[in-house]
Amino acid sequence: MSVTFQNIIEASETIANSIIKTPFYKAQGLSECADANVFIKCEFLQKTNSFKVRGACNRILNLSDAEKKIGVITMSAGNHAQALAYHAAINNIKAKIIMPKNTPFIKVQRTINFGAEVVLHGETLDDAKIFVEKEIENKGYIFVPPFDDDYIIAGQGTIGLEIMHDNPAIDTIIAPIGGGGLISGIAIAAKHFNPDIEIIGSEVDSFASMTAALNNTPYTYGSNTLADGIAVKKPAERTQKICQQLVKDIITVSEEQIEHAIYCLVEHEKCIIEGAGSAGVAALLKEKSRFKGKNVAVILCGGNIDARLLASVIYRNLERQGYIRKMRIIINDQPGTLGKISSCIGDMGANILDVAHHRMFNELNTKQTHLEIVVESRSRDHVDQIVKKIQEMGFLVTFA
Amino acid sequence: MSVTFQNIIEASETIANSIIKTPFYKAQGLSECADANVFIKCEFLQKTNSFKVRGACNRILNLSDAEKKIGVITMSAGNHAQALAYHAAINNIKAKIIMPKNTPFIKVQRTINFGAEVVLHGETLDDAKIFVEKEIENKGYIFVPPFDDDYIIAGQGTIGLEIMHDNPAIDTIIAPIGGGGLISGIAIAAKHFNPDIEIIGSEVDSFASMTAALNNTPYTYGSNTLADGIAVKKPAERTQKICQQLVKDIITVSEEQIEHAIYCLVEHEKCIIEGAGSAGVAALLKEKSRFKGKNVAVILCGGNIDARLLASVIYRNLERQGYIRKMRIIINDQPGTLGKISSCIGDMGANILDVAHHRMFNELNTKQTHLEIVVESRSRDHVDQIVKKIQEMGFLVTFA
Repeated sequence: MSVTFQNIIEASETIANSIIKTPFYKAQGLSECADANVFIKCEFLQKTNSFKVRGACNRILNLSDAEKKIGVITMSAGNHAQALAYHAAINNIKAKIIMPKNTPFIKVQRTINFGAEVVLHGETLDDAKIFVEKEIENKGYIFVPPFDDDYIIAGQGTIGLEIMHDNPAIDTIIAPIGGGGLISGIAIAAKHFNPDIEIIGSEVDSFASMTAALNNTPYTYGSNTLADGIAVKKPAERTQKICQQLVKDIITVSEEQIEHAIYCLVEHEKCIIEGAGSAGVAALLKEKSRFKGKNVAVILCGGNIDARLLASVIYRNLERQGYIRKMRIIINDQPGTLGKISSCIGDMGANILDVAHHRMFNELNTKQTHLEIVVESRSRDHVDQIVKKIQEMGFLVTFA
Repeated sequence: MSVTFQNIIEASETIANSIIKTPFYKAQGLSECADANVFIKCEFLQKTNSFKVRGACNRILNLSDAEKKIGVITMSAGNHAQALAYHAAINNIKAKIIMPKNTPFIKVQRTINFGAEVVLHGETLDDAKIFVEKEIENKGYIFVPPFDDDYIIAGQGTIGLEIMHDNPAIDTIIAPIGGGGLISGIAIAAKHFNPDIEIIGSEVDSFASMTAALNNTPYTYGSNTLADGIAVKKPAERTQKICQQLVKDIITVSEEQIEHAIYCLVEHEKCIIEGAGSAGVAALLKEKSRFKGKNVAVILCGGNIDARLLASVIYRNLERQGYIRKMRIIINDQPGTLGKISSCIGDMGANILDVAHHRMFNELNTKQTHLEIVVESRSRDHVDQIVKKIQEMGFLVTFA
C-alpha cells in the first residue's frame, strides 16, 4: 500500500491547527434504531461542512515553495472544490477550480466565496478533467485530485486516528465510498490500533464502482442520485488496492434507503447530512442484524444538502410512513358535503393540508365528483380510523 | 438569590454521569453572519434533545429515599415532561405527567416511551396544574416544577460551568427565557468566573413575560408561537429576582425572526433547533451591531421540532428570500403557450415547482386565462431576469 500509518500521523500533525477535531459521540436514537452502540463522527461540522478539507489541507501544506507560487488546480462540482478553495485561500495560494457548466449555482458561488477562480467548462467531470490537463500542460498548475493521491488519503485517515483515540472499543467502522480516499485512510489508521476492526464501505447502487472493481464484475453507472458526493464512475487503482486488503465488505444502498437515512438523522439526531454523507447510516439500517450489539462508528462525512431538497426528503418520508396521505372520496356535488367531511377529519384530530375537487376525467356521473384530501395524521392507523369514520358517513374512500 | 455557585458545582458533580457534556464550538457560518465570534452550546444533542434533563436529573438525584418511593409529578406539554420521565425511569421512580388534552400526539408518545404515566387533562397547562395539585394533596407525589425550584436552576446552571471551562474568553452569553430557569442558572455560574460577562436573554414577543416583570409594565400574552418551549405566561419570583440582578438585557424577537434563525441554523450550522431553542440566535441576528467582534456563546437549548414544521419553515424562508416565487402570467388560452413559457424558464436554468391555470374568477375575457407558475431559481435577481424574458415574449407578468 502506498500510504502508511506514519503518513497519517504526519498528516495529523500537519493539519492539526487548520481543521476541526469534530465531535464523536454515541447517537442515542440511532443506537436504538439499530440495536447497536452507534457512534457518529460529525464531519458535517468540519470546515466547509465536509471531511474533504483534511486531505486538501494536507496536500497544500506539503507543496514546495515553488509549487505554492504556481498554484493548484482541480475539477470538482462539490465538496472537494470548496475544500481546496478554502485551504488555498488561507495559505495565499492561487486555486483554479474547473466545474461542469450545469453545477448548481450555490456550489459555484460558495467556491468563489472561498477565494478560488472558477471556470465553468463542459457537461461532465470528464470534460472538466480534459480542461484541467490542458491547463497543467500550458501553465504548470499543480493538480490536486479528489482521492487518487497519497497526501489526500493520509489526510482523510486522520478521522480514523481521532475515532480510535476517542473510543478504542470501536469494533466496526462504516464509511461511504466514492473514489475510496476516505475509507482507505480510515482503514489504514484504524487497523493499526486494532487489526480485527471491521471496515465496512457503503456505495449507492447506481454508482457501485468500487464493489465492481473489487469483485472484478461488469458494472454500468447510473445517473441523478441524491448521493452525488459519492457518484464516482471509477475508483483509483491506489484506493482499490487498499480497499482490497482492508475493507471487509461493501454494502450497496438504494435511493430510498439514503432518503430514509437522511430523515432518521433529522428525526433522531437533529443533524443535517447530505445524501453521500448519509450512505453509512443507510448501510447500517439496511443490514441491522450484522451490526447488532457492536460498537459501530459511522462517518457522517458531509452536510452540504440543498435546503429545499432536505424539505422535500422530509415530506416524502412523512408520506411513506403514512403521516401524510392523500385520500380520494366520491361525493355528490352538493352544498355541505366538504363541510361534513372536513369537520369529521378535524374532530378526529388530523390536519388537512390540501383539498381538490376533480370534476373532469373520472368515471363518475356528472352529479358526482372526486374530492381529494391530503391529511396529516398521527400515524397510518390514525388515517385508517379516519377513513372508517368517513365510510360510516356513507362515502366511498380510496387512497390516491 | 436562592441559588449559589456552590449549588451549581454540586449539581455538576451529581449529574456528571447522567447527562452529556454537550459540544461547544465556534460556529463558522453564524460568526460570519453576525460579524462576531459566535460559539454554540449544543444542548439539542443532550439526552431527550433538550437541556431540561440537567435540572430534572439534579432534582431527582436529590430526592430522599422516602420521596423516591412515592414518585414525582409535573405538568408539561414539552421538554420538561420528557426530561423528568427519562430520569425518573432510569432511577426506578414513578413519574406522572399531566398534559393538556391538545398536546401533540408525538410528545405524548415520547413521554410514555420514556416510561412515564401520562394523564391528558384540561385545555391548558393551568388546568393541568390544578389537577397536579389535587394529585399531590390526595397521593403525596413530589412536585418537580419546570423552573421554579433551586435544584432545577442549579442543574441548568451546569451549562454555564461547561461554557466557561471550555472557553474563558467568552464575554457574552445569550440564552432564551421561558420561565427563566435556564438563564438564571447560567448567569450565576458565568458571573462567578467573570463578573463583567454580559448575560442577554431572549423572549418571543408574544410571551415577553420576563421583560414585563422586570420592567414592571403591563403585558398581554399571545398564542400559537413556533417557540412553544418558551411560551410561559408568568416567570417565577425566584427566577425574576436572579434575572433582575444578573441579566443585562432581554431582546424580544418576532415569529419571523425565529423562523429565520431556524433556517440559518439549518443552512449554516447543519443543525436542527426548535423554535424556542433558536430564540438566542434570533436575538443575535436582530441586534448584530451590539455583538460585533465579541465572543458570544449562544445556547441552542432544544431540538424537538416536528419534521413537517421544519420542512415548512424551510420553504417559507426560501420564499421570503426570493428563491421560490409564484408568478402570474396572462395568456391567451391557446395550444403551445405553456410550452413556450416553461421552455423559457427551463432555458434560463430555473426549476418549475407547480403550474395552475385559472379560468374562473378573474377580470380577463373568456379567451384569456391566468397561468400561475411557482419557480425555484438561484436568487431574486434571477427571477427578475426570467420575468423580463417572459415579458419580452409579449406576456404580462405579475407576482401572485
